[in-house]
Amino acid sequence: MGLADVRTPALLLDRAVVARNAAAMTARMARLGVRLRPHLKTAKCAQVAALATAGNFGGIAVSTLAEAAYFVEHGFNDITYAVAIVPAKLDEVLALQDRGARIAIATDDPATAAALAERAPAFATTLNVLIEIDCGQHRAGLAPEAETLPAIARILDAAPNLALEGVMTHAGHAYHCGDVTAIERVAEDERAAAVRAAERLRAAGHACPTVSAGSTPTAVFARSAEGLTEMRPGVYTLFDLQQMALGCCRLEDIAVSVLATVVGRYPERGRLLIDAGSLALSADTGANEFLAGAGYGWVMDGTAARRLDGATVVDVNQEHGFVEGAALPFDDLPVGARVRVLPNHACITAAMHDRYHVVEGGEAVDVWERAKGW
Amino acid sequence: MGLADVRTPALLLDRAVVARNAAAMTARMARLGVRLRPHLKTAKCAQVAALATAGNFGGIAVSTLAEAAYFVEHGFNDITYAVAIVPAKLDEVLALQDRGARIAIATDDPATAAALAERAPAFATTLNVLIEIDCGQHRAGLAPEAETLPAIARILDAAPNLALEGVMTHAGHAYHCGDVTAIERVAEDERAAAVRAAERLRAAGHACPTVSAGSTPTAVFARSAEGLTEMRPGVYTLFDLQQMALGCCRLEDIAVSVLATVVGRYPERGRLLIDAGSLALSADTGANEFLAGAGYGWVMDGTAARRLDGATVVDVNQEHGFVEGAALPFDDLPVGARVRVLPNHACITAAMHDRYHVVEGGEAVDVWERAKGW
Repeated sequence: MGLADVRTPALLLDRAVVARNAAAMTARMARLGVRLRPHLKTAKCAQVAALATAGNFGGIAVSTLAEAAYFVEHGFNDITYAVAIVPAKLDEVLALQDRGARIAIATDDPATAAALAERAPAFATTLNVLIEIDCGQHRAGLAPEAETLPAIARILDAAPNLALEGVMTHAGHAYHCGDVTAIERVAEDERAAAVRAAERLRAAGHACPTVSAGSTPTAVFARSAEGLTEMRPGVYTLFDLQQMALGCCRLEDIAVSVLATVVGRYPERGRLLIDAGSLALSADTGANEFLAGAGYGWVMDGTAARRLDGATVVDVNQEHGFVEGAALPFDDLPVGARVRVLPNHACITAAMHDRYHVVEGGEAVDVWERAKGW
Repeated sequence: MGLADVRTPALLLDRAVVARNAAAMTARMARLGVRLRPHLKTAKCAQVAALATAGNFGGIAVSTLAEAAYFVEHGFNDITYAVAIVPAKLDEVLALQDRGARIAIATDDPATAAALAERAPAFATTLNVLIEIDCGQHRAGLAPEAETLPAIARILDAAPNLALEGVMTHAGHAYHCGDVTAIERVAEDERAAAVRAAERLRAAGHACPTVSAGSTPTAVFARSAEGLTEMRPGVYTLFDLQQMALGCCRLEDIAVSVLATVVGRYPERGRLLIDAGSLALSADTGANEFLAGAGYGWVMDGTAARRLDGATVVDVNQEHGFVEGAALPFDDLPVGARVRVLPNHACITAAMHDRYHVVEGGEAVDVWERAKGW
């Protein structure tokens, strides 16, 4: 299928750019001396996972059990489910382990640990459990000095068929750092929190083989990974305007875009309408924190080679994107013309689509499916 | 499947509330003396469409050709595709007409009208075309007084196999009205713009049988529909916090919610985490314009009978919702507890899900699929 035959709106993926992003992160993790466990919540795609795990140990992270099931189906068998487990989801995890995969789960909750321990004697396989640590985002996780940290470890260690795998943290607050120095500081906080928690567990007699940290900004800018065993960045596979605003990538490293068609042309309003609105682009505007005018995405010409002069999706309705820019070339953009929108936040934009149209040399060469739902 | 067996996050739909909302709008349109053409971009579901068209003439509106194809598949055969057509999408429209459906398309662009006219001699069926009118939102559409209005009409009328169906407008700016008086004024502007455009076309010799307007706020608050032939509200089938903030519905009229599980419990941070983040709830925050503290949704207990004291999803990450409230009942909300989130904007939240779990009397009684993609 030629690119001209792709129905819009559609999610495009530049395979060469993904491969380059994957290789760069693989090399960076090798230099830092840690294993790379790519977080596939962004790409949700087996072919991207193959590129991201190439040259690495093969383990991945996911954010939903639907992703876990999809990746097991596609041959990945070392998976960290990096959102806290709840007892009702245990059967699905065990079913995946019955298929030969190793699904590490996470908790920061003593009552959940106790519930796991109560059910564990009946498990057919050993379930690896990570204790989630808060390194400053204050989303999930225990403070490294929390009293509950050794308490949870004791509960897990005492139970049959449960293995205390180690600790896991995520510096989500790196997304709100205004400069590289701040990201470096957050990366060090992330490292230090995970390592400190691991030290406490080891001092209490637990082996704690895994010390896992990471986000794309901290993976890109960490000056040291000492004491960590792995990092779990994800969005680096695709990149987006938010990561560019943070300094994590260049414009040409953004591997995804939304192909859209001009459906309205209003020179007198200084505006175009495209058929990519909040369902095709998402309503995420995170990049605007540090990139004024990121809007809902930047508008590039149909080949994505260059940005249309300052053109931005400034507003979205469900199926309409409002495009404005200082000097929109209206003569080149009749109704029916095609543009590409670089995403504000690739994780969320990509999740609005069921598949990627893979492009190479300006042509659509393949379709890659994405995992969906929960 | 009992509600307890529904995997979270999941989209719940209260069938009785949808039926009540549908009946109320049907009665209201009858009082106004116009036909109701429910816009199914919100519900994207044949069973909801059946409730919404009950007692009406059977026509519907859609926002994507994927929706159009889905509804044709489910027996609906009078469909207005209410986003401006582009020539590349024409083949799909014609294919649906070949299956016996009547798909009305819309344009506001003379070049597109000319492209339609050029292709029309080869059409096997007559294609009905609406001219889109701007009534003040300044999204799509021509001003009622635009010179291009009769010009487009002439192009369409001169072509074989094209029928000038009439005019269509949508007062999207009603969503930004601070009070009922303002909505009433916008509703009158919407009516007047459509009627004025139709009058101009009739004065130029075009029959203009359809004069279509409508959004949920203007449909609820319009004092007159004189001169209109139909209205196209959509979100009233489900309702949401945004519509409640606008005064269009009561809390108990909101028919959809996202069932979620508590995955983190942090009394010391005054916060819960749930497994519904920006992918399950969407990142849409439109309701906050008039409902401070709408956040990404209000948090109700698991049966949705009552709101947890001021509890709101105040922030979202991809698969995490951050719940805060003045007096969260942490003792009743251990990890694993279930809550329901009332959506900020139902059109967008619902689109994050492939299906509804239909609830009646607190139990899940059915699964209704939704149309997806483009």
